[in-house]
Amino acid sequence: MTLNRHFREDADYIVRTAIDAVLPEAAVARALSNVELTGRVVLLAVGKAAWRMAKAAYDELGPRVDSGMVITKYGHSQGPIGAFRIFEAGHPVSDENGFRATEAAIRMVQGLIDQDTVLFLLSGGGSALFEKPLISVDEYRDINRQLLASGADIVSVNTVRKRLSSVKGGRFAGYCGSARIEAVILSDVLGDRPDMIASGPVSPDLSTAEDALRIVRAYKLNLSEDALKCLSRPTGGATSNVHYQVTGSVSQLVHAAMRACSSLGYETRLLTDGMDIEASQAGRFLGAIARTHASSGRKIAFVAGGETVVHLNGGGKGGRNQEIALSAAACISGLDSAAVFSFSSDGTDGPTDAAGGYADGRTARLLEHTGCAVEDALRDNDSYNALAKTGGLLITGPTGTNVNDCSVILIDSDEEERK
Amino acid sequence: MTLNRHFREDADYIVRTAIDAVLPEAAVARALSNVELTGRVVLLAVGKAAWRMAKAAYDELGPRVDSGMVITKYGHSQGPIGAFRIFEAGHPVSDENGFRATEAAIRMVQGLIDQDTVLFLLSGGGSALFEKPLISVDEYRDINRQLLASGADIVSVNTVRKRLSSVKGGRFAGYCGSARIEAVILSDVLGDRPDMIASGPVSPDLSTAEDALRIVRAYKLNLSEDALKCLSRPTGGATSNVHYQVTGSVSQLVHAAMRACSSLGYETRLLTDGMDIEASQAGRFLGAIARTHASSGRKIAFVAGGETVVHLNGGGKGGRNQEIALSAAACISGLDSAAVFSFSSDGTDGPTDAAGGYADGRTARLLEHTGCAVEDALRDNDSYNALAKTGGLLITGPTGTNVNDCSVILIDSDEEERK
Repeated sequence: MTLNRHFREDADYIVRTAIDAVLPEAAVARALSNVELTGRVVLLAVGKAAWRMAKAAYDELGPRVDSGMVITKYGHSQGPIGAFRIFEAGHPVSDENGFRATEAAIRMVQGLIDQDTVLFLLSGGGSALFEKPLISVDEYRDINRQLLASGADIVSVNTVRKRLSSVKGGRFAGYCGSARIEAVILSDVLGDRPDMIASGPVSPDLSTAEDALRIVRAYKLNLSEDALKCLSRPTGGATSNVHYQVTGSVSQLVHAAMRACSSLGYETRLLTDGMDIEASQAGRFLGAIARTHASSGRKIAFVAGGETVVHLNGGGKGGRNQEIALSAAACISGLDSAAVFSFSSDGTDGPTDAAGGYADGRTARLLEHTGCAVEDALRDNDSYNALAKTGGLLITGPTGTNVNDCSVILIDSDEEERK
Repeated sequence: MTLNRHFREDADYIVRTAIDAVLPEAAVARALSNVELTGRVVLLAVGKAAWRMAKAAYDELGPRVDSGMVITKYGHSQGPIGAFRIFEAGHPVSDENGFRATEAAIRMVQGLIDQDTVLFLLSGGGSALFEKPLISVDEYRDINRQLLASGADIVSVNTVRKRLSSVKGGRFAGYCGSARIEAVILSDVLGDRPDMIASGPVSPDLSTAEDALRIVRAYKLNLSEDALKCLSRPTGGATSNVHYQVTGSVSQLVHAAMRACSSLGYETRLLTDGMDIEASQAGRFLGAIARTHASSGRKIAFVAGGETVVHLNGGGKGGRNQEIALSAAACISGLDSAAVFSFSSDGTDGPTDAAGGYADGRTARLLEHTGCAVEDALRDNDSYNALAKTGGLLITGPTGTNVNDCSVILIDSDEEERK
């Protein structure tokens, strides 16, 4: 017995096509056609995809860019881009190189006037990479460590973090004076709120001092008097000279996956682009949807995007997308007309070399034949090894983009007859 | 501020209409039109809805029934039905009255011949009510207590239980000889497997001795030598003289809810009839679906049926359906075009007098105005009090049926304008 070949091939095609649509190059090319460049053009790219976004813009705009700068994570730049200054810095913990790069960026945009343009290319990881703290570096790092260990969600983490920073919460926009800011965003935050992506350096801050203080209390964070005072200072307000484009996001990933499903002849249904529950529960829900529609006589695909969470109990190897697939495997076991797969757009799901996982009605039995039960693998958070044994790993290699995850249910009653 | 009146009224209508379709009377009336009655007709009704199912059949068939018997839970019979014998017995723990009633049922069907008919009306609760153990009553009770406390799901519980019984796992069919058995089933088990409903007294047993032993090991159950021997004995096999009809089930509840949504002008989408994850996670997923479609410009409803679970952490009051609604409330907060509600077909969600809960985009803020946060209420499992404060309790009173639960998402972008 092997996996259902048709579904498996469809899955590989959908994964590849969907990720292609949200690669930094494709995303920047789409965005630039809607960008107005006037006067002196200063390019600033920040985030884990900064180098590739900057390169794509440079390839398109060439000498129209007067000066440029890239601030990205160690190991994420791939050579010179024209005369751009390229910085690598610490992530997820900010370091001195990040602070120095941020100061250089502030100097680069100073003195710009009305007609000038700041092309700000922003991607995930910017919160740590683009930073100049208002408090001592030691305390800044300590508070960051407390935040990351607290279990607070990314929105809460950023609400506190931006108030301790001289560039976040819209404050970087202040340094750009009256120049036009064209922000092009590859979003790794569900809901694509510009004030949340990289803690919103050029976005009006929608949170309040009271919000920040509530989070400090809720997660019992330890702050000095100085830091507490910072939380109360006003952050950046709304400005008319900033234009945003979210050019890559989980929503675009989901819609690209839906187009791929349609092109394969599936009637395609969007579930959500904000799936944020526990991975194993999400997999079970998707499996239940698959089971219900398996005998519908239709060729239909359901697509969900988001960022699920995994609470580690076992000592196994896996990732949230692999856990979704394995969890669904139990629900669709024995069905020839259903498959469920899930993948991360960055190509690395958890600490593994797989982008995600695939399961169909044969996965659970294939696994049993190796002497392993789905339930046991889930309990051990060992989805990687379980899926590896059944041919259910989706492998893309690192993709250089990150707009979160996408899960797909495929139903094709013809597969039942083909058996 | 108050809840969205249109959504709230639609919800009440949908709840009422869906439950009406799965009441025992409606379900039995539907089924009887497909039942063939030949020779001597013996009626046996077992389960929490037994009295109402038997009454509905008697009202329809009258003197065509030669003899009849009802075995139901204490307090669940409502007077005489013709000359039927009516027994009340213990549930969820079997008692002597149940054993005596079951023996009487065995005597009633003995001596039937080929042309005769056993009309077997089965509903939830039958596992405990219809029983004659193969082992000592003391050990039987002890094992049942162990099973219910183990956290094993209903399928696992029944797999063990039926092997310790002289009537379960298809064994009761044996007493009926060659008579035709017309089984009419009001199902409270997801997936409607006849061998699982009331532990399948007239259904071929699909589980194996090995399955039962694996469950005993997994949940570390304590069984005597005698009981362990029972687990290995063969249960009932397939017989051609048994005909099943699942006349009421969560699937019919869901489809009735969908028809009600359609009649109100909603484009209607089935999600699943097998939703079995944690209630708060299910609510979050449904909330995410609602949020994604809230600005779609369509009037659309998504419907999911199933039986979610609640793990009690807090000391509050609530039920799984109320927890679904409250959990969704956090996700749809601020949206004028979305509502999520969930209800139990038996009208009693958890240990409360509500059938379920309703939330729309105003619920979270209404709750905040009373000084309470959604997150805190969820943490305390206090959905009942939270929803009570916001007008979000769905009240039907006990309905006399139980085919599990139904959750509905309503989206209507016109509601945004109406604001």
